[in-house]
Amino acid sequence: MRKAKLHKYEVNQYLISALKEDIPVEDISTKAIYRDEREAIVSVIMKEDGIICGLDVFSYVFQLLDENVKINKIYEDGDYVEKGKEIATVQADVSVLLSGERVALNYLQRMSGIATYTHQAIENLDDPRIKLLDTRKTTPNMRIFEKYAVKIGGGENHRFNLSDLIMLKDNHIAASGGIKNAIHYARDYKPFVKKIEIEVESLEQVREAVDEGADIIMLDNMDIATIKEACKIINKKSLIEISGNITRENISKYKGVDVDFLSSGAITYMANPLDISIKNLRYV
Amino acid sequence: MRKAKLHKYEVNQYLISALKEDIPVEDISTKAIYRDEREAIVSVIMKEDGIICGLDVFSYVFQLLDENVKINKIYEDGDYVEKGKEIATVQADVSVLLSGERVALNYLQRMSGIATYTHQAIENLDDPRIKLLDTRKTTPNMRIFEKYAVKIGGGENHRFNLSDLIMLKDNHIAASGGIKNAIHYARDYKPFVKKIEIEVESLEQVREAVDEGADIIMLDNMDIATIKEACKIINKKSLIEISGNITRENISKYKGVDVDFLSSGAITYMANPLDISIKNLRYV
Amino acid sequence: MRKAKLHKYEVNQYLISALKEDIPVEDISTKAIYRDEREAIVSVIMKEDGIICGLDVFSYVFQLLDENVKINKIYEDGDYVEKGKEIATVQADVSVLLSGERVALNYLQRMSGIATYTHQAIENLDDPRIKLLDTRKTTPNMRIFEKYAVKIGGGENHRFNLSDLIMLKDNHIAASGGIKNAIHYARDYKPFVKKIEIEVESLEQVREAVDEGADIIMLDNMDIATIKEACKIINKKSLIEISGNITRENISKYKGVDVDFLSSGAITYMANPLDISIKNLRYV
Amino acid sequence: MRKAKLHKYEVNQYLISALKEDIPVEDISTKAIYRDEREAIVSVIMKEDGIICGLDVFSYVFQLLDENVKINKIYEDGDYVEKGKEIATVQADVSVLLSGERVALNYLQRMSGIATYTHQAIENLDDPRIKLLDTRKTTPNMRIFEKYAVKIGGGENHRFNLSDLIMLKDNHIAASGGIKNAIHYARDYKPFVKKIEIEVESLEQVREAVDEGADIIMLDNMDIATIKEACKIINKKSLIEISGNITRENISKYKGVDVDFLSSGAITYMANPLDISIKNLRYV
Amino acid sequence: MRKAKLHKYEVNQYLISALKEDIPVEDISTKAIYRDEREAIVSVIMKEDGIICGLDVFSYVFQLLDENVKINKIYEDGDYVEKGKEIATVQADVSVLLSGERVALNYLQRMSGIATYTHQAIENLDDPRIKLLDTRKTTPNMRIFEKYAVKIGGGENHRFNLSDLIMLKDNHIAASGGIKNAIHYARDYKPFVKKIEIEVESLEQVREAVDEGADIIMLDNMDIATIKEACKIINKKSLIEISGNITRENISKYKGVDVDFLSSGAITYMANPLDISIKNLRYV
Amino acid sequence: MRKAKLHKYEVNQYLISALKEDIPVEDISTKAIYRDEREAIVSVIMKEDGIICGLDVFSYVFQLLDENVKINKIYEDGDYVEKGKEIATVQADVSVLLSGERVALNYLQRMSGIATYTHQAIENLDDPRIKLLDTRKTTPNMRIFEKYAVKIGGGENHRFNLSDLIMLKDNHIAASGGIKNAIHYARDYKPFVKKIEIEVESLEQVREAVDEGADIIMLDNMDIATIKEACKIINKKSLIEISGNITRENISKYKGVDVDFLSSGAITYMANPLDISIKNLRYV
Repeated sequence: MRKAKLHKYEVNQYLISALKEDIPVEDISTKAIYRDEREAIVSVIMKEDGIICGLDVFSYVFQLLDENVKINKIYEDGDYVEKGKEIATVQADVSVLLSGERVALNYLQRMSGIATYTHQAIENLDDPRIKLLDTRKTTPNMRIFEKYAVKIGGGENHRFNLSDLIMLKDNHIAASGGIKNAIHYARDYKPFVKKIEIEVESLEQVREAVDEGADIIMLDNMDIATIKEACKIINKKSLIEISGNITRENISKYKGVDVDFLSSGAITYMANPLDISIKNLRYV
Repeated sequence: MRKAKLHKYEVNQYLISALKEDIPVEDISTKAIYRDEREAIVSVIMKEDGIICGLDVFSYVFQLLDENVKINKIYEDGDYVEKGKEIATVQADVSVLLSGERVALNYLQRMSGIATYTHQAIENLDDPRIKLLDTRKTTPNMRIFEKYAVKIGGGENHRFNLSDLIMLKDNHIAASGGIKNAIHYARDYKPFVKKIEIEVESLEQVREAVDEGADIIMLDNMDIATIKEACKIINKKSLIEISGNITRENISKYKGVDVDFLSSGAITYMANPLDISIKNLRYV
Repeated sequence: MRKAKLHKYEVNQYLISALKEDIPVEDISTKAIYRDEREAIVSVIMKEDGIICGLDVFSYVFQLLDENVKINKIYEDGDYVEKGKEIATVQADVSVLLSGERVALNYLQRMSGIATYTHQAIENLDDPRIKLLDTRKTTPNMRIFEKYAVKIGGGENHRFNLSDLIMLKDNHIAASGGIKNAIHYARDYKPFVKKIEIEVESLEQVREAVDEGADIIMLDNMDIATIKEACKIINKKSLIEISGNITRENISKYKGVDVDFLSSGAITYMANPLDISIKNLRYV
Repeated sequence: MRKAKLHKYEVNQYLISALKEDIPVEDISTKAIYRDEREAIVSVIMKEDGIICGLDVFSYVFQLLDENVKINKIYEDGDYVEKGKEIATVQADVSVLLSGERVALNYLQRMSGIATYTHQAIENLDDPRIKLLDTRKTTPNMRIFEKYAVKIGGGENHRFNLSDLIMLKDNHIAASGGIKNAIHYARDYKPFVKKIEIEVESLEQVREAVDEGADIIMLDNMDIATIKEACKIINKKSLIEISGNITRENISKYKGVDVDFLSSGAITYMANPLDISIKNLRYV
Repeated sequence: MRKAKLHKYEVNQYLISALKEDIPVEDISTKAIYRDEREAIVSVIMKEDGIICGLDVFSYVFQLLDENVKINKIYEDGDYVEKGKEIATVQADVSVLLSGERVALNYLQRMSGIATYTHQAIENLDDPRIKLLDTRKTTPNMRIFEKYAVKIGGGENHRFNLSDLIMLKDNHIAASGGIKNAIHYARDYKPFVKKIEIEVESLEQVREAVDEGADIIMLDNMDIATIKEACKIINKKSLIEISGNITRENISKYKGVDVDFLSSGAITYMANPLDISIKNLRYV
Repeated sequence: MRKAKLHKYEVNQYLISALKEDIPVEDISTKAIYRDEREAIVSVIMKEDGIICGLDVFSYVFQLLDENVKINKIYEDGDYVEKGKEIATVQADVSVLLSGERVALNYLQRMSGIATYTHQAIENLDDPRIKLLDTRKTTPNMRIFEKYAVKIGGGENHRFNLSDLIMLKDNHIAASGGIKNAIHYARDYKPFVKKIEIEVESLEQVREAVDEGADIIMLDNMDIATIKEACKIINKKSLIEISGNITRENISKYKGVDVDFLSSGAITYMANPLDISIKNLRYV
């Protein structure tokens, strides 16, 4: 059963803009050499181990250049693929293959890098009761792709954008005159379909947040001991999210802590693109 | 003297799209709390050492929400700033400050990360005769920002897009029946304002490329010894670019080699965003 | 304290499109008569009693034609205004006043109509413990305006769009093989920031939904007696929404029923625009 | 013979914007449940009597999500359909059917409501010599759909936009120093392909308008007796349009009056959407 | 008194697209030289005699680069200006002046060329009773500019687009089974605000068209003698338009013929841009 | 072997905008007459001798109205075609043929006019060693079409836009304090993939430009004798471009001069559209 999917109509506008960015006038190199149409096939090859992610997006890029492109997928998004394996083949007019290659790979490599980082962080955490979340620290105009990659890597998505959730941070709390008021203002304003999350920095604030019935409490930059204390106070009355410089490298220290979520900007900010290339062009 | 600048009209379309991505309907948290207009100031603080980059873009994001935003820059793009320093202040209605913060920082952090990585790579290379170039391995819809950051970090830009330069790679050469033919086809097609660069993989190909008068010869994945051999063959008749997995960590091995350029996908792909945050909101 | 506000950047794209719709080339009547610039003032007059809504949007339309327009608001969004009262004045070049008038009024009248209908429905309900909700039965490309009007009229917003909430209806339930499975699939897929609402049609389904911990249960087209039965079963464990042809005329029958929400497509579908006109043009 | 048709290329931009409004990121409910593709059929059912209108637009919405959607129309735009009848079936991947349903219905219901109101008003007027016109009192970004619905309901379209016709109203007349000057200015400016209509408020103005050769004279808010007087003065030298709060309910009083047109803002402003729903999803 | 004006909001979309066409990334020449801001003034100079047209559009181009540009107009649209005269000055940051120059001039020169050609054709015709019309033979995406230039040159505008007028040509007539049917179909379909024009090729067709009450009859490619015959038949019952390869050079043969309009594709197709340049940059 | 090609994705945005310009609402004439679909064929006929150019663009226009259009090309872009010949046939629903005709022809005629003018200028020059270049004096939003037409006519393209080449003109030189400084600033700023061209006005400036190693030297408005002197100074060390009012009529005077390029604004500014029409509609 498919875990997630990006439909073409959901991402079209970004792909068109990315192609315009790379081809403002024409691909002069390709036009100079390939003056007549000729059908060819290329192979997409994994050049380091990792989780493949973005194969549909990869196809959509070529389809925007020519709707008759044919993609044959050998692996699916989410598969762990070893270095050297062929992931897919693409068949099209040779000029389409060359003109679309870089943009298509830029998406595929970045998405696979995030899926792989996320997957590794979850393995390092090694605690299936705690879910790993992304943040809004994504690359501008890449959020839909990066958040999808987090899911493919086994993570979950935190709010997608500022319209998705009430998230009360230090400035909101200070401006309201405390947690109690902040949550009251939020309840008064928000649509009932939205949850309220509140970021707290002390056990005193934790108590207030629980008393006011926050849906989610985010414990920001607390040490493990304080987190455990907070969990006791919260006592399952709210969901608990831990935040603060969590990376693939340091995540294991949260193993066994009784919280619901860890959120990590690093899984989108620190994940480097996977090395994937297009090789072995042959004519058909 | 200013090294580079991004004008508002050059980047507007990307910023509008990025704001829409983060605020598809409204910033519900901020609207819930800040119901009346109130002017405030925040400080932009460096949380790790690095080269700051993207302060104009950072301002434009807020200006798209409200044209009356005031930015006071304490540092300029390209300055090396230590952890803890205040880089700039932003003054606006408090809801504008909170609603624009994440998108503005997403640009600033990523651009500063690339400028810093580039700067460090150049320091590691420690050879002012060799210039460090970027590639087209940029994030989709981020190229104008990422290539600007490379310049601010001390690097130079390779071609901006597929319309910028004739770049003949293995497939172009194979399809043409060899380097000689490929360059002839390119000369026949290209506008005279465009240069021709050719990617070669052997000393035999180097000789052919020199004979045909390529403007730039790219030595792809050659070892240092072979590169030196190639330089002798080329003998200053073409510019020389070295390519192939060059990173901040391994770049120093090219010190003293007599080439013009090193190109590195890593300076955009491997550069992680710098830690920068907005702090200390106070009303005026 | 302001209840709600539409920022210019949130609605700009719709207003530009609406002006293009009304002025694809030029306003020939106005250009024929007013050939030289001349500053004038007009009055916006209420021609029937109601809740005024949309004054900011009204201003933004004129500002898109000429940024120097001056609006003087006599009433604010949400005020109940009697027939004959002057709501605001607009000052600008006379051709701007005439060219923008119809589009600006089309927004103002429709938004005021919805605010007024909503307000009347709430008065008829006469039960402050039950909140009145809108639906997704809005006019295409008018949702942000219509949902804002519902809030101004005293109602609350249900989900804004399909990305906002998991809402499981009959087809989702059938496809999943029952309520239990549907909620399990939803939990497995959804970001944790999203709530789950489920639509039920029988008391048996109510029981299942409560057991599975649905955040909101929507009782669809049940009679009052059955609703009361359902409330007992739910026993405050989920929020309760009542749906099914609720209008300003029939809403009073729900008074005193122990539910949280009534949702009504009628408040956007059946609300006719309020009669408001622009009068008394004078030169300054 | 087809009376009217909306081509896909004429309306595409509005439909894309409407879908983005309803699906800014993804349809989470449907994605959660329907993870694999599965072809299904649904029926479009009339839930109250009326004129069906907008079936092509209804199809285009689904086609924008997936071009392989198949629509089977049982009725055509303009048909009077009784409550309970099946109007059409739609076949597509089940997720396309559910994700597009609300937007497609929002168009279909609103357009059918206007067609039905228009049709009823014409029946109430019961005078085939007088034509019923719409106005520019349409919903922003809905004009092309609403004016089409008026035609399908048996009405005619007044000017589509401000570029379509010279329409001289009270302010234009006052600014010009009277009807004579206003018409002269208009003739001097306007392209010859445009007609001149003038709005008059007294018999004196009627005489002037006839003398100046206005193509159309609009009698604004006159009583029946005065209208008859005006008709005599005009004596078929200009077309005559009657305006002023004409609704389905009061239109019959104009029966037999010797004018060409009645224009009514009510046919677009007061027409409520028809109740139509999508039912009976089955797999194929 | 101003004859015509192009508002900024009417043309903005075309100007933005034209600037993007000329500056897809950056103006590298100007950025390389002018690294700091410096205010300067340039003069717009007429390099051949002609009618100046497009000064507002010229300003809007610079304003899109920087809203603080100052334009001082010495002449106005429609003035006949001799070679060597200064038409206007533009003051702005020097990089704005250089980056916007070519696009601004491309509009100004082309519009002035059309205004001048139109003016000369009217002088050659030397018959104020006959008006000179343009056609839809305009450059794609330039129509609003070219039709404005025709007006500034003293001509009149024929229909602006396919939505403006019923224009029945040979294929429409043939498909309808003759002129009578074609006009009947047109009357049945068209909004009453639209006129009907019909293109005829023989005196027999002229008679039919008059009998059916066409608003405008276009005599296509008839010789002067036949035109005179047709005029007698029409006898002022319809407006008469003459069409068929009318140029500045051959237009005088129509002097004194008793028709209303001559339409000429040549005034937009054959008008070459006027020589105008930007000179004498000085700092302030 | 194909010389050049415009892909659909490269020009789509301009064609959509051009169609919207001509059909803002609907083609009322065609809709009035052709109410039912009926497949027809038309012929594209050459009405004067010339080089045909733009057949792909011509097809894309119709495809945007209906993707099922069938085009049969009898000639190819670049063919010299005599008056009276049939160039292509188009088959589609008759309303598509009539609604798209004018926009499609406006592109085809203008592009063919430029190709023909360019071809004639090259024939008049009669010196295959000298290449004829276009300039940036193109019609706004038509550059990609006009520069393609220049290539089809046998010319070459100068820079496509301001991002393509460093081109130092009088103001850049003056602002830098002379040619030497200007070239140094340019080298310091520009990406290495860009060439530097410098415009000179005296032999003294020629010497400086050669000394500084300009890639291309443009001799602006020099007489033939001075050009010859300049060529000796340059002595093949830079490419040489001659500029200054070069037209089809005066180009022959440059025959035999030892330069690389002549650039001419006239080939885009002075080329009038070729007379081509659509004829002979028949049903299939």
